[in-house]
Amino acid sequence: MGGKKQSPRSRPTIKEVAERANVALSSVSRVLNEHPDVSYEMRERVTRAIHDLGYEPNLIASSLRSGSTRTIGFVVANVANPLFADITRGAARRLEEAGFSMVLTNSDGEASREERMIRLLRWRQVDGLIVALADEHRRETLQELAQHETPVVLLDRETPEVPSTSAVICDHATGVSQAVDLLFELGHRRIGFVSVLEAIRPGRERLRGYLEGHAKREVDVPRDLIRLGPLTPGFAEEAVGDLMSIESPPTALVVASNVLLVGGLRALHRMGIPVGDRVSLVSCDDIPLGELHSPPITVVDRDRTRMGEMAAELLIERIQNPEVGPRTVTLPTQLVVRSSTAALG
Amino acid sequence: MGGKKQSPRSRPTIKEVAERANVALSSVSRVLNEHPDVSYEMRERVTRAIHDLGYEPNLIASSLRSGSTRTIGFVVANVANPLFADITRGAARRLEEAGFSMVLTNSDGEASREERMIRLLRWRQVDGLIVALADEHRRETLQELAQHETPVVLLDRETPEVPSTSAVICDHATGVSQAVDLLFELGHRRIGFVSVLEAIRPGRERLRGYLEGHAKREVDVPRDLIRLGPLTPGFAEEAVGDLMSIESPPTALVVASNVLLVGGLRALHRMGIPVGDRVSLVSCDDIPLGELHSPPITVVDRDRTRMGEMAAELLIERIQNPEVGPRTVTLPTQLVVRSSTAALG
Repeated sequence: MGGKKQSPRSRPTIKEVAERANVALSSVSRVLNEHPDVSYEMRERVTRAIHDLGYEPNLIASSLRSGSTRTIGFVVANVANPLFADITRGAARRLEEAGFSMVLTNSDGEASREERMIRLLRWRQVDGLIVALADEHRRETLQELAQHETPVVLLDRETPEVPSTSAVICDHATGVSQAVDLLFELGHRRIGFVSVLEAIRPGRERLRGYLEGHAKREVDVPRDLIRLGPLTPGFAEEAVGDLMSIESPPTALVVASNVLLVGGLRALHRMGIPVGDRVSLVSCDDIPLGELHSPPITVVDRDRTRMGEMAAELLIERIQNPEVGPRTVTLPTQLVVRSSTAALG
Repeated sequence: MGGKKQSPRSRPTIKEVAERANVALSSVSRVLNEHPDVSYEMRERVTRAIHDLGYEPNLIASSLRSGSTRTIGFVVANVANPLFADITRGAARRLEEAGFSMVLTNSDGEASREERMIRLLRWRQVDGLIVALADEHRRETLQELAQHETPVVLLDRETPEVPSTSAVICDHATGVSQAVDLLFELGHRRIGFVSVLEAIRPGRERLRGYLEGHAKREVDVPRDLIRLGPLTPGFAEEAVGDLMSIESPPTALVVASNVLLVGGLRALHRMGIPVGDRVSLVSCDDIPLGELHSPPITVVDRDRTRMGEMAAELLIERIQNPEVGPRTVTLPTQLVVRSSTAALG
């Protein structure tokens, strides 16, 4: 089954394919680009003609003619984070349906790599970008983003300095505030908060929810129980270990990310502190670890696959209609109460 | 910070960039393609010249000239599977270091979508492919693979019909056989086996390990305890629920995938069957769920990030040196014993 080589002279053209299939040239293009609005019958006819003639299209050459590469750049901090894995899956599906391929880059949370990747994607002539910045305030990265003349959709980020961006954001503050409320109702007053830095929107919004939850009850915020750091299990393991070792430890913890939850649980297991019993626990984003933990973990959840789909939809609508301006869609969060949150004994 | 538009006439050329930076044209190309073998000083000089002149390269146009798009197609069944997420991360990192971008496609395990994606990636002129086929035997997909004149690396798959492929494979059989051995030592004789279908190599190899583990002890294989199905939590939940409901249920289970483990645990939790106590449990691929479960789960582990790195390395070596033939690298598995496997009471 070796690949067939043909001399350039004998290579059939797209025009010959259209003639043989007895369809318009544009129809052949649509089939080649896996465009969704192609009937089954049309796809079959064109595919048969391609096969009969041994035609091998070069989409790179045609993208140079059309000015569209039918590719979308996707910049995430860590594709191995279950959060981003689900988002990527949702976005990939929608993009594929609309005939776009996804160029995935993984910055590992390094802001300078992210900047270089955004630049490289521009040079690669992507038709649009979906980006979860590692730092919303880094000037060089924002300048790179602003250079993109094609649409940009942010994933749970805000960049007022680059007003041309669309965004999918989540209502973290409401969810975390509800979680704090639940803990107050259960009698807790010393609630620890372990979360990501405020350099990105989820960090700011979750902190806001935590503070608002206290303000609503007119309870002083226990400032000594707040730990903000990088999105790594190691940080959370240290932070939770530290919080549970102080003289007056928290009776409840909000560990505000699925990545941080892994580290937080490691610390609690290592110290032999039973969840729900000696310390109530809330996390953010539902993953199997939380559901199948003993006891199951209360979480502030959201539809991650929908986030990815929505980001792709916002991008596609602007690519297909350049008249459409940037817009921001807010997705809700839901508090899922399980037995890791219990009444203060 | 709006993007600057320039008339085509005033657009600076790559030659002017090379002249201003006082370097060779090829050096400018290497910087533009994020090639790894570029000194810091060279990158700085070229970047400064690019910036001073306002040069905006079009890598699509240059790939048409060079015949290389510096892109790699990556075909996975489900990027949200923690297994693939880690592999993707490892591969993305290595590819980036070598100056390649990754075009990610997600087939959701549908063989016909996979075939279309492999074809589309060829038409997009990728320089190579990394593929985890949903089905190793599907003729149409194998024909598409064989059409690729650029190198192909398989992820834990075997396609003797397409001998030009390289592969990274894992020694699942040894790991699963060791797990069965451990269970025998603990006194178990009725060991259930819930795994993926034999259409892909990990399915075949894990089954082989299970059978060999029995053969070594000259114990008859309990055929009624084998359940093979699709890689979904739903299948495993049903299979485990079913196995634990038969008249003579297994005293131990090998649930041979992290995706299947989620479903298997759901069934056991729902039925109130304590792991380790009433049924010993082994899974494959270590994820936080297994480590932080109560009790922690014994697993046949492997280095998933290394798998991705190795796949990228095998691909890059063949792209950089077309004389290199296909080769297969086998990575080991390790049995990590935890308290989910206990002596038969």
